[in-house]
Order: sequence, then structure tokens, then C-alpha cells
Amino acid sequence: MKVYADNAATTRMSRVAIDAMLPFMDTFYGNPSSLHSVGQEAAEALQKAREIMAQHLGCEAREITFTSGGSEADNQAILSAAVLGEKKGKKHIISTKIEHHAVLHTLDKLSKQGFEITLLDVHENGIVTPQQVASAIREETCLVTIMYANNEIGTIQPIAEIGAICKEKGVLFHTDAVQAAPHLPINVNEQNIDMLSLAAHKFHGPKGVGMLYSRKGILLTKIIEGGSQERGNRPGTENIPGIISMAAAFEDACTHMDENSAKVSALRDKLIEELSKVPHSILNGDLEHRLPGNVNFCFEGIEGEALLLQLDRKGICASSGSACASGSLDPSHVLLAIGRPHEIAHGSLRLSLCESNTEEEIDYLLKVVTEEVEYLRNMSPVWRDLVSGKKQFML
Amino acid sequence: MKVYADNAATTRMSRVAIDAMLPFMDTFYGNPSSLHSVGQEAAEALQKAREIMAQHLGCEAREITFTSGGSEADNQAILSAAVLGEKKGKKHIISTKIEHHAVLHTLDKLSKQGFEITLLDVHENGIVTPQQVASAIREETCLVTIMYANNEIGTIQPIAEIGAICKEKGVLFHTDAVQAAPHLPINVNEQNIDMLSLAAHKFHGPKGVGMLYSRKGILLTKIIEGGSQERGNRPGTENIPGIISMAAAFEDACTHMDENSAKVSALRDKLIEELSKVPHSILNGDLEHRLPGNVNFCFEGIEGEALLLQLDRKGICASSGSACASGSLDPSHVLLAIGRPHEIAHGSLRLSLCESNTEEEIDYLLKVVTEEVEYLRNMSPVWRDLVSGKKQFML
Repeated sequence: MKVYADNAATTRMSRVAIDAMLPFMDTFYGNPSSLHSVGQEAAEALQKAREIMAQHLGCEAREITFTSGGSEADNQAILSAAVLGEKKGKKHIISTKIEHHAVLHTLDKLSKQGFEITLLDVHENGIVTPQQVASAIREETCLVTIMYANNEIGTIQPIAEIGAICKEKGVLFHTDAVQAAPHLPINVNEQNIDMLSLAAHKFHGPKGVGMLYSRKGILLTKIIEGGSQERGNRPGTENIPGIISMAAAFEDACTHMDENSAKVSALRDKLIEELSKVPHSILNGDLEHRLPGNVNFCFEGIEGEALLLQLDRKGICASSGSACASGSLDPSHVLLAIGRPHEIAHGSLRLSLCESNTEEEIDYLLKVVTEEVEYLRNMSPVWRDLVSGKKQFML
Repeated sequence: MKVYADNAATTRMSRVAIDAMLPFMDTFYGNPSSLHSVGQEAAEALQKAREIMAQHLGCEAREITFTSGGSEADNQAILSAAVLGEKKGKKHIISTKIEHHAVLHTLDKLSKQGFEITLLDVHENGIVTPQQVASAIREETCLVTIMYANNEIGTIQPIAEIGAICKEKGVLFHTDAVQAAPHLPINVNEQNIDMLSLAAHKFHGPKGVGMLYSRKGILLTKIIEGGSQERGNRPGTENIPGIISMAAAFEDACTHMDENSAKVSALRDKLIEELSKVPHSILNGDLEHRLPGNVNFCFEGIEGEALLLQLDRKGICASSGSACASGSLDPSHVLLAIGRPHEIAHGSLRLSLCESNTEEEIDYLLKVVTEEVEYLRNMSPVWRDLVSGKKQFML
């Protein structure tokens, strides 16, 4: 059996997304900046895609800037807020310790440019409270950037409340919604969001395309110089097939959000319930405020990478954390931030589901994960020390 | 009859490019950073695409960084050279007045950061000579960036000779080869190129993907912060379908370069010969050092935009200059740089061909362009003044 349980890393493109894309590859292939009809067909399709995205985000079409992906959108949002802040002498930014590297590394860069960065701690379930944000905001704060849902442990943040605080205090609020969309409802006005990043390949759309919502009136800073595409905010010939396909995938996912969410949550809950029975294991993240498809456990006494390779041999695609950081020997910064010790953080497993996963697959996952954890523990000198009492169990 | 003669703006994706892309949308859809087999299939395909590009550029696979397009590649090349230059106290960059805005606007930005920019004049045919470059290089020069072929007037620069001078003087040489590839041969070693930008959608590949070649040893500066993709040079999940498709399109075009070039040049030459017979018209660019598919004329007494709209009504897609700058009321900076007065620069027409254009299309183009120029002139008060002698003809 083959089970793809790494949908947080990337997803298979849906039929809807592929079908939307194909005509723009060889029939409507114009450059939307061209004045002729082939170009104008592309320009109209681009506008329509912008309207579809806007409709499902509760914003205006002109508030959307298409980018090459979520990382670029995160970078542009943060950089823009920093430039605006600097003009007013406000050089303080608030974020959390569990953001994606696209956010954390951009903040590192700004820190070297004289910005002061406050990275809030999160609670053991991965949640940052609105009160923490309120306490951290100062006169000089120009931006709060906090992800909607975490890519590793699936924790959903109270972004509407955080947004309300930012609004009250007159501070820009950006949220990286790359993992949240479109599993969770988004309405930028109701949730008080000033800027929001999305990536199409996380919701069965194409790789290489994303978008940044920025509330009208916020002057964006360009990351790339060149032509005047995207109202001058993002030069380069627009990736029309990718953009059209993203809009189709997003619309499809938003339309089926409730049923997909119900189905995937049920699969997730079964996994969580059963894997919790593995001795000396612990669920990472929050039980209630959790992405429908996210399961993340630490198993004491094993290496996450070894487990992944064993699972792969049995046809299961999973992850130990973020794909973007894989290959790194460091334990996940997210797991460390929720208080897992190094040894425990190394033994993590993320299973991320989507609506095409089945009950049978979940049963297979449970069987194989349980077996392989036991197999690896039996081979592990650390496990032997734990069992013999030479070392103390932490979980 | 429908004739697409705006291939310099963008091209229709070829069957080869589409067929290469499709399997990576729904069969091999993994994230190459994932350790499991679905991810590793994607990683292997990515490496193969890198090797294909490298093979046809005469470089090593590790010297290639995939980007979201040509503009991003131009930006990253120039910014990287600037950062390296600044470390050595070298803050002088040489370019030309006819570069793409992705280059010129990046140089503008650096100029505001204290860099001194020399924009070389070009001769009336659009050519900059190696001697001009040699004379402009100073002790503090950190970069020469000159395009391989111009997007508007098709002029091919003597980049191998310019590269040799840069190499001798120890100055980095970048070339924007977005319009050149793959109509002209590229070998980065033989042509002494240190950095080179490409965009897939100019050679029947997909929009939203490009690449930067940078000679090993050149430390790139990131434009986007985030994960460690592309050896840390370009964060964000790789656009695997786009990259695979670009490599297939590039390989296809390189393989058929000679026959395509011969065919397209013959069509171009017929257009140039016949359009030269239109009274008070002038060819822009060089007759000999010219892209195979580029035709660019100024017709006195008419507005380029009016001509484009008339042509569009007759099924012909053409351009008055760069698509990236269309919508702007300013005349082309390229036409001004080659000495065309404002009034003449406004009356420009660019026809850019590819190998799927036919003899019949060329005949139709000739017929319609000639008729429409005459039609518009008959309606033009400027033309009446010219004919009556109230104004002097410039052409």
C-alpha cells in the first residue's frame, strides 16, 4: 500500500487545478502586458483569478499581489512593514519562536539592520496568547507577524484576537497562512488581518505560485526590480497558468472546506487516539486548536529520520518536521520552542493528511508506525538504557 | 488569418514543454526536500533538469540556481556582485542605456545606496563596443552587466569580447540572455560569462520560471529569505513542474537551434526587405548582429499604439516595444538611446517571430502592415503637415 501523508510539505495537484491551468499553456498563452487580444485575454483571466482569490479572502481584488510562492510573500510583507515602520522611527517587530524560516530569517536580516525583534515564547501546546502580544507591543512596534497555523505541529493561533489588538494599537498585523489555507476559514476583515501570505502548492494547486494580501493603503516594498506588473509591486511576466490554477484550487478547496475538514479531522483524531497508546510517546501541539490534517508525535528512544526511512520502505511518505528544514541535523526549532528536550525532539514524526486519504490508509499507517517504532526501539541502545533503568524516561 | 508575432513578449508553450511538465503535476508531485521516495523522485528530476541546463550552457550543474524568472535572476546577479564589490570597496558598475528594466531599475536602487553607475551609450545600431567597456572599467568597478541581445531592437552585443575584457581586468561579467536564449549559442566559458539570466517563457517553456548561472566561487546574495533550497541561494519550495519543463524546452530549442534560426532569419529578412520599402520608415537595430526573429521599424507620422490596435483587428499580435513597459506613455528608452527623436520613437512596431511562423503569415503581415500604415497616415494631421511641407520629414 502507498500512503502519502506529507501534505504539509506539498500536495498532489487536483484535477480542477490541472484542468484550469492547461488552456493557459498553449491556447491563452499571451503576456497580459501586451495590448493585443491574445495579451488581453491573459489580462482578463488574471483579473478574474484575482477576483476569485479576493472573494474567498473577503478582500478587494486590488489588494492581492501574486508572487512566486509563500516565502516570497512572507518576505515582502515583513520587508514592507519594516520600511514603513522605519520611516516613522518604529523599528520593533513582534513574532513567535515557531514561525517558518521565511519569517524568522527575514527577521534575522532586519535585526542586522537595526530592528529590534521580539520572538514570543509559545505555550506547550504551541499557542501564543493575545495577552502576550498585547504586553509586547510598544510605541515603536511597526509589525506583528504570527502564523495562522503551524507547519509542524498544526497549532492554530487566535489570529482574529491578535489582529484586534494590533488594530486597536495601530500596529500592522501579518499572518503566514500558508498551512492554514484553505483548511481554515479566512476573512481578512473579520479577522483584522492587514497582510496575509498563501502558497498554492499546499492546497492542491501548482508549485511556484503564491500571493500576498495587503490591505489597501499599505505601500508595498518591491523585492524584485523591473517592469510594472502587479501594480508595480511585483515585476516579471506574470505566471498566468499558475495563477489561474491557484485560483481554481483555492475556490475548490474553500467550497468544500467543511466537508473536507470533517473528513480529515476524523482521520486525524483516529490516528492521534491510537498513536497516543504507544508507550513513551507524546502528541505535539494542541488537541483542540489543531489543523484538520496534522498529526505530530515524539517517540522516545528513536531517531525520526530512521523512522521515516522505515516507513518509506513500507510505502508511507511522512516527515519529521518541515520539509524546508529537512537535511538539517538540528532538531526542529518548533519542538524545542514547545519545550521538548533535544533527545525527544529528534524522535518526531509528522503525518499530514488531506481529503483523499482513506480509512484503510489510516489503519495501515497505524499498523506500520506502531510496528516500526517497536522495531527501531528494539535496535536502539538508548532504548535499552531506558528499559534497563540506566537512563530515566522523559516521556 | 491569425498571426502571433509577439514572441519576444512571450511564447506559446511547446508540446515538448507541456509533456515534460504534466507528470510532475500529479504523478511525481513530491517536495524535493522531503526524505521519502516521492520527495526523492522530485529531487532526482530537479538534478536532472539542472544537468540538462548546464550541459547546454557549458557549465556545471551546481552553478545553476533556479528562480521565478528572468527579472529575479537579473536582480540576484546584480545584487550579488554589488555585495561582493562593496566588501572590497568597489562600488562602480557598468551597463548600457538599452538594458531591460529589471537591470536598469536594480541599478537605480544601487545608485541610491551609493553605487556609481555608468550607463554606456550605444551606437545607432544598438551596439556597445568592447572598447567602450574597456575604457569605462576602473579600479573600483565590480560588475559589467550587458544584455546578450536586446528585447526591442534585437541587437546582439559582442559579449564574448566584452567578457574577455572583464576577465582580463578581474571584473565580474553578467549578461541578461533572456531574449538571446536559445536563439543564439551560449557557452559561458568560451564567452567568458560569470553570470547569466534566462526565462523559460521566452523559449516555449512555462511562465514563472527562470534561472541564474553563476560561476562557482561567486557567493550569491539571497533576495528571498527562508529555507535552504537551491544550495541556500533561493528559498521556497522548488517549482518542479516548471523547472523540468524549462529544461525540456531549452534542450529542444538548443537541439534545433540551427534549423530554427535559418528558417526564422529568412522570414525576418523578407519582412525587413519589404517593410524597408515603406516610405519614411526606418529599421531599428543592426542588420547583421540581429536576433533571428526580430523586426523593429519606426514609421513616421503614425502612433505605434494605433497601429497595434489596427493590426489586432486584422488578427495580428505585435508590439510597439517591450511588453513590460507597455501601457506607459513614454517612448521606449531603447529607441531614444539609439537616437530616434520622440516623435519617431512613438511610431514603432516590433514583430518578433518564432519557428512556427509561416511564409503565408509573413505575406499577410506585409500586406496588412503596409495597408494600415497608409490608412493611419491618411488620417493623421501630422502626416498631412509632413506631406504639405508644413513640417520637415525626419525619415
